[in-house]
Amino acid sequence: MPRTRKAVVLLSGGLDSATALYWARAKGYDARGLLFDYGQRHDRELRSAMALCQRLHIDFELVRFSLPWRGSSLLDPSRPLPHPRTRAAIGTRIPSTYVPGRNAIFLAFGASYAEAEGCGAVVIGANALDYSGYPDCRPDFIRAMARAVTLGTKAGREGRPVRILAPLLKLTKSQIITMGLRLGVPYELTWSCYRGGPVPCGRCDSCRLRAAGFARAGLADPAMQRI
Amino acid sequence: MPRTRKAVVLLSGGLDSATALYWARAKGYDARGLLFDYGQRHDRELRSAMALCQRLHIDFELVRFSLPWRGSSLLDPSRPLPHPRTRAAIGTRIPSTYVPGRNAIFLAFGASYAEAEGCGAVVIGANALDYSGYPDCRPDFIRAMARAVTLGTKAGREGRPVRILAPLLKLTKSQIITMGLRLGVPYELTWSCYRGGPVPCGRCDSCRLRAAGFARAGLADPAMQRI
Repeated sequence: MPRTRKAVVLLSGGLDSATALYWARAKGYDARGLLFDYGQRHDRELRSAMALCQRLHIDFELVRFSLPWRGSSLLDPSRPLPHPRTRAAIGTRIPSTYVPGRNAIFLAFGASYAEAEGCGAVVIGANALDYSGYPDCRPDFIRAMARAVTLGTKAGREGRPVRILAPLLKLTKSQIITMGLRLGVPYELTWSCYRGGPVPCGRCDSCRLRAAGFARAGLADPAMQRI
Repeated sequence: MPRTRKAVVLLSGGLDSATALYWARAKGYDARGLLFDYGQRHDRELRSAMALCQRLHIDFELVRFSLPWRGSSLLDPSRPLPHPRTRAAIGTRIPSTYVPGRNAIFLAFGASYAEAEGCGAVVIGANALDYSGYPDCRPDFIRAMARAVTLGTKAGREGRPVRILAPLLKLTKSQIITMGLRLGVPYELTWSCYRGGPVPCGRCDSCRLRAAGFARAGLADPAMQRI
């Protein structure tokens, strides 16, 4: 299929955004990655995102920014990560790993990049079912940002809005994984763990959601098989 | 008046945001500034923003980020600034100084800072009357971002939304200046010119809007009197 439509895919290096990237390619989008270095605890996930782009031979841009106010255990090494939660408890309360305004910032940068490069869409791997409970992963927020992007850009005002696509929004983690494996996502390249050691910790919310997703899909996690 | 309510004021160093800062103080807000270094053509406006914070003895944070895709003559020294326009023509077409997604990025960072610091409001000096025609200065965009911020933040989900306040949105430039002088805004500290030389160029859209505003208000621009 010729790739005539251009899209920006927000890439964290994790499982969801990797799947969103392969989804966009399968839909015929000429995808480019947008990566963010914003003082995460570790750069392991950034290296995963770059490896995905290299695997697909696609361009990417890296935006660096500081959040000098922190306000999240994900950015502040002096704050502990939250205690491990049972899978049932995950998503019931907004955890300390929540980064205030993060997806609004990411989507705003994505819209800027998309408009500057003439792309018709920004793709985000946000997911509101098997997720950590972050408010900026929910459908009503994604819709509100899409409207803001349409109204706040020249492209939108001229009838060529940059669309915000969140193809995983209403899928379970196991559905995401099943779809991703069908699309050929190299999950062994992805990194979900909040910690940045040589191997995933297996205990944080993100590791637990990932493990449960693979288990429900009846599949082994290739990232764990490497260990 | 005790300053019990905390607010983040987006400060560019220009006339509008300076007035918005003094408006917030007059409304009793405990204001702090949020400044952005994003590869502007010059840092003259940043120095103006810092001088305003110093004058009022208020804290500020500076967020640095890159926009590697540029897409605006305001960020790309190799692109000419637009030809001077008549004042009547300003606002009729979106000029090349438009930075894709800029106010969405600024407001998203503002919401992040506000939430992390427990502030109830983000104040922006956007103005949709005597303005350059940027889509991200219009009321419907500001409203859409306010909704996105409410839905996408923990504070908003818990019934303590960070409000987006745009007190200058529907004022003319001369009304803004008249209000600002009443509030004691030291306009001699502000910088509006798109160029960064020792004195304002007097020819760019921003200089023309400012000059016309002072003329209509029947006042002299203190920044020009210094020359």
